[in-house]
Amino acid sequence: MSDSQIRVVFEPSGRSLSASAGTKVMEAAGRAGLAVAQPCGGAGVCGKCRVRVVAGAAEPTQAEAEKFSASELADGWRLACFSRLTRDAVIHVPDGSLLACHQQILAQRQHGAASDVQPAVRKRYVELPEPTLADDGADLLRLEQAVGESFTLGLDLLRRLPGLLRQAGFKGTAVLADGELLDFEPGDTRGRCFGMAFDIGTTTIVGSLLDLTTGREVALASGINPQVSFGDDVLSRIRHSGSPAGLDDLRGSVLATLATMIESCCRDGAVRREEIYEAAFAGNTTMQHLLCGIEATQLGAVPFPPVFGRGLLLRAADLGLPIHPAARAYVFPVIGGFVGGDTVAGILASRMADLAGPVLLVDIGTNGEIVLAHEGKLLSSSTAAGPAFEGARISCGMRATRGAIEKVNLDGDIELATIAGAPPVGLCGSGLIDLAAGLLRCGIVSPEGRMLPPDELPTTLNDPLRRRVMEADGSVLFAMHEGLNGDGPLAITQRDIRELQLATGAIKAGIRILCKQAGLQTSDLQRVLIAGGFGNFIRRDNAQRIGLLPTDVHHEKIAYVGNTALEGAKWALLSTTLRAEAEDLARRTRHVELSQDMDFQMEFAEAMIFPET
Amino acid sequence: MSDSQIRVVFEPSGRSLSASAGTKVMEAAGRAGLAVAQPCGGAGVCGKCRVRVVAGAAEPTQAEAEKFSASELADGWRLACFSRLTRDAVIHVPDGSLLACHQQILAQRQHGAASDVQPAVRKRYVELPEPTLADDGADLLRLEQAVGESFTLGLDLLRRLPGLLRQAGFKGTAVLADGELLDFEPGDTRGRCFGMAFDIGTTTIVGSLLDLTTGREVALASGINPQVSFGDDVLSRIRHSGSPAGLDDLRGSVLATLATMIESCCRDGAVRREEIYEAAFAGNTTMQHLLCGIEATQLGAVPFPPVFGRGLLLRAADLGLPIHPAARAYVFPVIGGFVGGDTVAGILASRMADLAGPVLLVDIGTNGEIVLAHEGKLLSSSTAAGPAFEGARISCGMRATRGAIEKVNLDGDIELATIAGAPPVGLCGSGLIDLAAGLLRCGIVSPEGRMLPPDELPTTLNDPLRRRVMEADGSVLFAMHEGLNGDGPLAITQRDIRELQLATGAIKAGIRILCKQAGLQTSDLQRVLIAGGFGNFIRRDNAQRIGLLPTDVHHEKIAYVGNTALEGAKWALLSTTLRAEAEDLARRTRHVELSQDMDFQMEFAEAMIFPET
Repeated sequence: MSDSQIRVVFEPSGRSLSASAGTKVMEAAGRAGLAVAQPCGGAGVCGKCRVRVVAGAAEPTQAEAEKFSASELADGWRLACFSRLTRDAVIHVPDGSLLACHQQILAQRQHGAASDVQPAVRKRYVELPEPTLADDGADLLRLEQAVGESFTLGLDLLRRLPGLLRQAGFKGTAVLADGELLDFEPGDTRGRCFGMAFDIGTTTIVGSLLDLTTGREVALASGINPQVSFGDDVLSRIRHSGSPAGLDDLRGSVLATLATMIESCCRDGAVRREEIYEAAFAGNTTMQHLLCGIEATQLGAVPFPPVFGRGLLLRAADLGLPIHPAARAYVFPVIGGFVGGDTVAGILASRMADLAGPVLLVDIGTNGEIVLAHEGKLLSSSTAAGPAFEGARISCGMRATRGAIEKVNLDGDIELATIAGAPPVGLCGSGLIDLAAGLLRCGIVSPEGRMLPPDELPTTLNDPLRRRVMEADGSVLFAMHEGLNGDGPLAITQRDIRELQLATGAIKAGIRILCKQAGLQTSDLQRVLIAGGFGNFIRRDNAQRIGLLPTDVHHEKIAYVGNTALEGAKWALLSTTLRAEAEDLARRTRHVELSQDMDFQMEFAEAMIFPET
Repeated sequence: MSDSQIRVVFEPSGRSLSASAGTKVMEAAGRAGLAVAQPCGGAGVCGKCRVRVVAGAAEPTQAEAEKFSASELADGWRLACFSRLTRDAVIHVPDGSLLACHQQILAQRQHGAASDVQPAVRKRYVELPEPTLADDGADLLRLEQAVGESFTLGLDLLRRLPGLLRQAGFKGTAVLADGELLDFEPGDTRGRCFGMAFDIGTTTIVGSLLDLTTGREVALASGINPQVSFGDDVLSRIRHSGSPAGLDDLRGSVLATLATMIESCCRDGAVRREEIYEAAFAGNTTMQHLLCGIEATQLGAVPFPPVFGRGLLLRAADLGLPIHPAARAYVFPVIGGFVGGDTVAGILASRMADLAGPVLLVDIGTNGEIVLAHEGKLLSSSTAAGPAFEGARISCGMRATRGAIEKVNLDGDIELATIAGAPPVGLCGSGLIDLAAGLLRCGIVSPEGRMLPPDELPTTLNDPLRRRVMEADGSVLFAMHEGLNGDGPLAITQRDIRELQLATGAIKAGIRILCKQAGLQTSDLQRVLIAGGFGNFIRRDNAQRIGLLPTDVHHEKIAYVGNTALEGAKWALLSTTLRAEAEDLARRTRHVELSQDMDFQMEFAEAMIFPET
């Protein structure tokens, strides 16, 4: 396994990205915005995630050798959740391997490409009659007549327009958006019209360069949100934004990264930055405020009111984005101080409001955002899950990066899988869920979350696992691995289990309160959609076992919908109808402040108990 | 007579201005936008221009002593066209002394003040509920709900808004215009809302500070357009704008004057400049382009197409105006390269499109702009009258400033009147028309425009006038005055008469072509309205005698409508309905390029001949 970057292209969507060697196909597909089906939760048993690695296929694994015939393997058929990418690859993802609701969405988009792609930015090629004494009307009226509509324009363009028209011999392309003339370009440039969609995460920023004429993604870039150097959680960023210099730090650093990503996408897609006429941004409420340079301290104090609610249509130049000088920037509407534009994008891209039956959308991160759609009504809430699933506050916790234990199996002795197959360094969120579920199943942890000391362990427990339970400093721990660098074993402690109970309980209580406010029980849910990068990697049965996902919802009703924040941002860029829908969804969604619910404390206390089997 | 400035206030309008001591009441009223009736053309015979000088009345003149009783004179009654202002004065203008169509307009405006004053800028005082956990919506949504409408806002205000709301304790005044939030001011500032209207003339700039809540004029300022230092005609300014530095010169100089006028009006009206939220500008096409910093060279070459046609709604800050940082600037729509926003304002303020019968509007300046309204249709044209009426190209010509002969009477010997009663320095436009009419009447000039030499003069000519005709260097001239400084007599020459014929012929031919294109003869005209500062001072019978105004229109159908450019700019500032009407009028008005009319050369040649009596 090397740290070198490889290039991955997905067919037939044409989406491409750079990834570290060793990345699983499933992960790369998720980052490229393709929600590959994974009904078994990555256990390698269902075989639904089949893809054909047209070029650059890795050696088949044991599981793959069992699922495919020799000729299929020779043709490149692999399981997305097993196959790792070791060199540049081209991967064909059959429609049947995409998540059902995404198949529908993609079909809609590919089907009606010409009619569905209705970006705000449009280009019109026009040839104007040159002024004569018999036809001596104003330049602008002449242009409006040729374009077929009236428009406004900025003073700067107004000043340059007469020169532009004459240099172009009165033949050129008008760039228009919402009744504004953004530019007039000599000749016919209709084929060159681009936009960029961004998901501004607290940790990661992903940007997608889109061809606004076809809707196709031309290039994708991602990077760490450089604001992490001012604190890796939202609250420390909010605090840092309280001084003008701090706000400048935060805004400036994210802009520098955006500029780098724009540059990289332009290079990859052979696009000039002046050909990008609009950008769309979805992120949590704080990230969106900081992007706009809005001091965010009020998001850090009760009652956490955001400054803006509706989406903002700004000048990209005012934000400081190095794209077309008259380009616009659309910033997603937000629902509340902790239910932001990323959630709105998720509601939009998951199509949850259009699906039959009560539908729940859960985005598990530092804050677990939850949305419930039922009978045309939308309820949302944010739960203070805390960063346990991102590795913080867990003694051996870490983010989902190289060397993180991402998968744990306690059938027999412990089996571990790490990211990039590297030697284990720590435990990330999905591994934590697996481990806790396993410890519950074999009785090492009680439903109340108590880790049993060696002398209380159930008699049914096998020896290999029994040997891993030990006491140290008066506390019980479970050792997973001997550990590197002589730091002692990688282990999970009683305290870690308590942190997990808090995080899980918050989300579980939030789900129950939302259901209760809608007059529902969790068993009524017809679909549970899991959004966000982390969601792609959790195993549903284990998430249900620890109570993170409702236990009374059938396994098949739970689906992963991928990075819906980026997907929603793209949709808003590609279609003014969908953008208006995002605004509508945001305003229609009622924000439920959990602490205002009389039952919250009781629900939370109850939710801390792991489900009985 | 002194050069000192005096302060004049008109009642009941409350309009006020500064003027030079020696200014006639009529002139001051005109500059204050009050169109005092003057049916006899200032001859002092009709007595229709009666006003009561409440304070600061001058000694009555002979004509006034004949028109008023002793007690009336003691009460301050004077004739506006005779009485001169020598010190600070308060003048009551009875409605009956205003021009009929203006009486109507003013009545409408005063009558329906509350309903007619509908400026684009509006203020709403709101008290917002403070955010609580149960009501934790975004600041902007909270404000929108309180204001009762949604709005956009600039990034700068968005950044400051949360602080503004909290500093104001969530009680304050939203400043709105066309769906945009311009500011949020602590407390109730509804009573303070101002705008400035400007007439940007080639020679003179006039600015009026208006209270947008009542429609009242708070202060008035005027000054020379400093661009005259780059040439006193439009074409030399156009040429100067061809280089970036030249354009900067022109724009910068006019902006400096605007800033000075804004400052002076703010001081006079006790208004802070941040309380001015909108400015409106009417000027000729070139002046409007230069104000916007648009290079105007294409206005100087066939076919003279303007850059913009519709009115522009710009950020005042982008123009460089020192008023509220988010204030807007409305620049009037233009009809053609030489029929500009001042003409549109004239069509609007004269209400010509609403008057019965074919109506002609004539604005005589460097270019004579002519508009004809007939059966809902509007035709306009610009005639290259040249600057003869502004004193240029006339051997003893000068502008209408101190010492200019503004009135000439040739009954008996010559009688002259000069501006400010100063010793005569030269001849201005109104004096030139008087003189030429007189010379025609007494036969010194033939209908073809030939000045007869002494030996060909008619026998009926009296001796005093006969002695004034002389020959020098083989050319005939008529001496008006011995002249100052030993430079020889002030005289009009054959060449001057030819210049006058060219200027008069251009306007006369323009009027005839417009009438012809509308299927009319000049005798069909029901009203001839004379606009512009110069118009106020010409005597209709003399203007008809030389053919400048149609001879077959009855004297009483000719009326002066004052500075309609400023008046129209004010209207557009006070009423969005009237602003929309200005846009509509501009687009409805067909621009007739005279040189494109087959008959123009013939009409022009014929129009050069003075009318036979």
